[in-house]
Amino acid sequence: MQSRFRHVALIGKYQAQGIEPVLEDIAQFILRQGAEVTLEHDTAQNTGLAGYPTLDVDGIGAACDLAVVIGGDGTMLHIARELARYGLPLIGINQGRLGFITDVPVNDVRAALGSMLRGDYEEEHRTMLEGQVLRDGEVIFDGFAMNDVVVSRGATASMVELRVDVDAQFMANLRADGLIVASPTGSTAYALSAGGPILHPAIKGWVLVPIAPHTLSNRPIVLPDASEVTVEIVAGRDASVNFDMQSLASLLHGDRIRVQRSAHQVRFLHPRGWSYYATLRKKLHWNEGVGA
Amino acid sequence: MQSRFRHVALIGKYQAQGIEPVLEDIAQFILRQGAEVTLEHDTAQNTGLAGYPTLDVDGIGAACDLAVVIGGDGTMLHIARELARYGLPLIGINQGRLGFITDVPVNDVRAALGSMLRGDYEEEHRTMLEGQVLRDGEVIFDGFAMNDVVVSRGATASMVELRVDVDAQFMANLRADGLIVASPTGSTAYALSAGGPILHPAIKGWVLVPIAPHTLSNRPIVLPDASEVTVEIVAGRDASVNFDMQSLASLLHGDRIRVQRSAHQVRFLHPRGWSYYATLRKKLHWNEGVGA
Amino acid sequence: MQSRFRHVALIGKYQAQGIEPVLEDIAQFILRQGAEVTLEHDTAQNTGLAGYPTLDVDGIGAACDLAVVIGGDGTMLHIARELARYGLPLIGINQGRLGFITDVPVNDVRAALGSMLRGDYEEEHRTMLEGQVLRDGEVIFDGFAMNDVVVSRGATASMVELRVDVDAQFMANLRADGLIVASPTGSTAYALSAGGPILHPAIKGWVLVPIAPHTLSNRPIVLPDASEVTVEIVAGRDASVNFDMQSLASLLHGDRIRVQRSAHQVRFLHPRGWSYYATLRKKLHWNEGVGA
Amino acid sequence: MQSRFRHVALIGKYQAQGIEPVLEDIAQFILRQGAEVTLEHDTAQNTGLAGYPTLDVDGIGAACDLAVVIGGDGTMLHIARELARYGLPLIGINQGRLGFITDVPVNDVRAALGSMLRGDYEEEHRTMLEGQVLRDGEVIFDGFAMNDVVVSRGATASMVELRVDVDAQFMANLRADGLIVASPTGSTAYALSAGGPILHPAIKGWVLVPIAPHTLSNRPIVLPDASEVTVEIVAGRDASVNFDMQSLASLLHGDRIRVQRSAHQVRFLHPRGWSYYATLRKKLHWNEGVGA
Repeated sequence: MQSRFRHVALIGKYQAQGIEPVLEDIAQFILRQGAEVTLEHDTAQNTGLAGYPTLDVDGIGAACDLAVVIGGDGTMLHIARELARYGLPLIGINQGRLGFITDVPVNDVRAALGSMLRGDYEEEHRTMLEGQVLRDGEVIFDGFAMNDVVVSRGATASMVELRVDVDAQFMANLRADGLIVASPTGSTAYALSAGGPILHPAIKGWVLVPIAPHTLSNRPIVLPDASEVTVEIVAGRDASVNFDMQSLASLLHGDRIRVQRSAHQVRFLHPRGWSYYATLRKKLHWNEGVGA
Repeated sequence: MQSRFRHVALIGKYQAQGIEPVLEDIAQFILRQGAEVTLEHDTAQNTGLAGYPTLDVDGIGAACDLAVVIGGDGTMLHIARELARYGLPLIGINQGRLGFITDVPVNDVRAALGSMLRGDYEEEHRTMLEGQVLRDGEVIFDGFAMNDVVVSRGATASMVELRVDVDAQFMANLRADGLIVASPTGSTAYALSAGGPILHPAIKGWVLVPIAPHTLSNRPIVLPDASEVTVEIVAGRDASVNFDMQSLASLLHGDRIRVQRSAHQVRFLHPRGWSYYATLRKKLHWNEGVGA
Repeated sequence: MQSRFRHVALIGKYQAQGIEPVLEDIAQFILRQGAEVTLEHDTAQNTGLAGYPTLDVDGIGAACDLAVVIGGDGTMLHIARELARYGLPLIGINQGRLGFITDVPVNDVRAALGSMLRGDYEEEHRTMLEGQVLRDGEVIFDGFAMNDVVVSRGATASMVELRVDVDAQFMANLRADGLIVASPTGSTAYALSAGGPILHPAIKGWVLVPIAPHTLSNRPIVLPDASEVTVEIVAGRDASVNFDMQSLASLLHGDRIRVQRSAHQVRFLHPRGWSYYATLRKKLHWNEGVGA
Repeated sequence: MQSRFRHVALIGKYQAQGIEPVLEDIAQFILRQGAEVTLEHDTAQNTGLAGYPTLDVDGIGAACDLAVVIGGDGTMLHIARELARYGLPLIGINQGRLGFITDVPVNDVRAALGSMLRGDYEEEHRTMLEGQVLRDGEVIFDGFAMNDVVVSRGATASMVELRVDVDAQFMANLRADGLIVASPTGSTAYALSAGGPILHPAIKGWVLVPIAPHTLSNRPIVLPDASEVTVEIVAGRDASVNFDMQSLASLLHGDRIRVQRSAHQVRFLHPRGWSYYATLRKKLHWNEGVGA
């Protein structure tokens, strides 16, 4: 038996169609390396791929020691969030378009996966955000986020006013379209569009990025991820909060969004020689100047 | 008779309370300069100030040759938009906090207003935006804006995708939180928060400012105001459009927002010696560095 | 005779080598359209291409009614600046890499140039900056710029302090790495890197872009190009000024840089169907999101 | 004896004049708390204050267990850098203008200093940058920086091209005015002007901020401060490097600037109740919107 991993889960992107051949191919390849293969339940249903045992995501977390995800960064983040509590590592296979965290191209999957199953990989840990929404002291919503927790103004409101406290110390009052609290993973997503910096995954911090702030000196700030950040809705109607893509609308004045680092970390495995910077260069087109 | 203006309207901010003494004082002062004084109807109602003829805004537009507005920039922009078609000039009186366009402080009102009524002023023209929302070729909404026309993503949508055409030439596809089309007047408002430049009021242009664009090179662009700009909703649920503060929500894919320069201009009168740049320095705190 | 232009000048990029075949090919093609062809003197020398009459740039300005430039935007801007006073139009041929203003690809040159010589083109006018450096009231330097006039701190100075006046009105004191005064043509060059907006070529304005300003609200501002902008060196050692690439170093405190619109405009000819926006999309990679 | 500190050094800003009364007052106050007082040698010379033992900065480092600095942030950073290797803590007294790190106002000095000498303070550690310039493998310059190491283009050069490696991994090629490598302390100085984020002092990272980069997606990036960053001059004449204010000009192509975290940290003491965020709010005018 060549594989260091005993039981590998295969997970496809949401409502994936047409990826049966790829899944089948990967499943057979893994079996030949001597590991068991289980399909995620919805993936099996959506693709119609039969002949493999299936488990739901929690079942996978309990039974498997590796998850191989076929899809884009969105799928990968979703699954990683669900599996975080179980501690098993993930490998991301992209279908032609390099992702920040789905870095094995499908047409290179056998070579790359073969080495990785034999233990030849680079392991990287990513922090995750955990948060609650409090109304009158009661938790009315809680969730996890790999990328970011975002508080936004209502669609037809001109702004939202927020009070930000860090570890119970008052930081700032902010009038803006909203505020993003992003992890290093999320720093290359929405936070980057809103003017935030890139945080290397090894930085133990969050970046708070105001969106279109009225005060021009309200700049992005990087805080230690050991801090608890609290954002209170002070003014502005119909504000909402998003934990990654999961959202709660119609926040009331006085509602507080509390954000901490989750106790769980996500473990990503990359092929040996993988480079975070190479991914940045590729994804952000750094090799191209204006018109280069 | 000292006043060059024959018939002056006095207009207070929305639901103004406590400004009766100021209004009364200004009204009496204007009467002594030999001009008629009319109160705007709602202003008279809200303040309870009696003893003056009243007219609604359209009546003022038809009968008066000057409007004196007591309030902040918001009030001034609102009244200016309503009166634009009538061509009468406006003077803005602020109550202690300098505005971009309400530049006569109330405690200096007699000296300043006296000279201005005698014809000693600087006149400035501001362009206005006019726009329509088209659905299946039908106009379902139209409006005017002194500051900006803003297309925004729905509150719980991650983005809106827009197609922008200028004079029927394709300009760009944009995935972002939204897009601001701002006049020079609006360039120091929301557009500035979103990263746009300041446009001097004499610039015959609009600035298009993308809000948190996914493509980092989607930068603000200044277009001639003789251009017609069309913004089509391509993707993203629950997008909305605002003309200044007036909004239309629940836009559909395929809806198009068309923006042109209004045929009407607004005429603002400033005290002699007024300086656009002095206002910028004051409002934007240019005399203060970091911590200066 | 098919060509509307009687006498066409051919100008290659500085120290161009290896473009003889292209030049020869274009020259022969123009001759066949019934126009005279003259080579710019240095171009003839650098390439060794013989058999054509030659003229220096001023001679071309006096004798020719069209200049065809083979090279990049830098070459084109340089020649355009030199020829501006003569009023003859320019066509820019790029060698494979699209320029903002060199928009005819060399491998499409016959088809494009043929139509253009017959009068089928779009004509566009670009404004040019003109400026002087004054010391103790004396002009110690003057020049023209197609892109920008840039005042910069000395290399080992921490900043330069500048006083900016517009039409003899005080605008701002600025502590920064420098200040860019850019034309619409220059707005997609250095000014864009420093955070400025794009100005459509039809905008009659300059954009002033501060470079790394100490005061965070010192934002780019677009001024009418009828204005005279004066920049005075208030503090900081070894400041310098650049008119496009031509520079004057070791400016002294009290030195003033005065910038106006040149009386001359540059005329660029584009192939029918040319689109300013298509060039922007291509040069700024607008069709590509993060990682798209 | 009330003071926890046995031997306190008093250090004034460079060429300080007129601070004798303040120094004398503080010196007497400290003596009354039962500690020895030594004046920094140049401070004694520049102010003419006599009657106290004097030591140079290195002597202070060896003999004293607390340094009290009277001046601005510039003075404080300079002294902190010099004393870093000795490990003694610093207290910063400002003369009316709050600094980021000089937070005891001189008119509150007795109350604040009294408590702090008795041990009632908050201690904060700041990282420091250490770097070398390598030419042909030889170290030709080395230095320390509390704020930043900055590589800049020559004054009349249009840009500098830099190659950045992190821990011997290639990160990016950058064409820009320059590159700032800033510590958390430096993140509110030059790096902020150039568009960088604020880093909380507890963040174990540097921020790399490109200055006016040609590639618009070259955004600030926060890297772990355990990384070694190397910046090589690839192109551009007359580039220079600054370690805080100490500079080396005329860098050559191939020269490499290597930056690591210094083994030394700086210890700042703040009055009990001091708040980093309150300082940010005050210094960055966060309580003031546009025109508020």
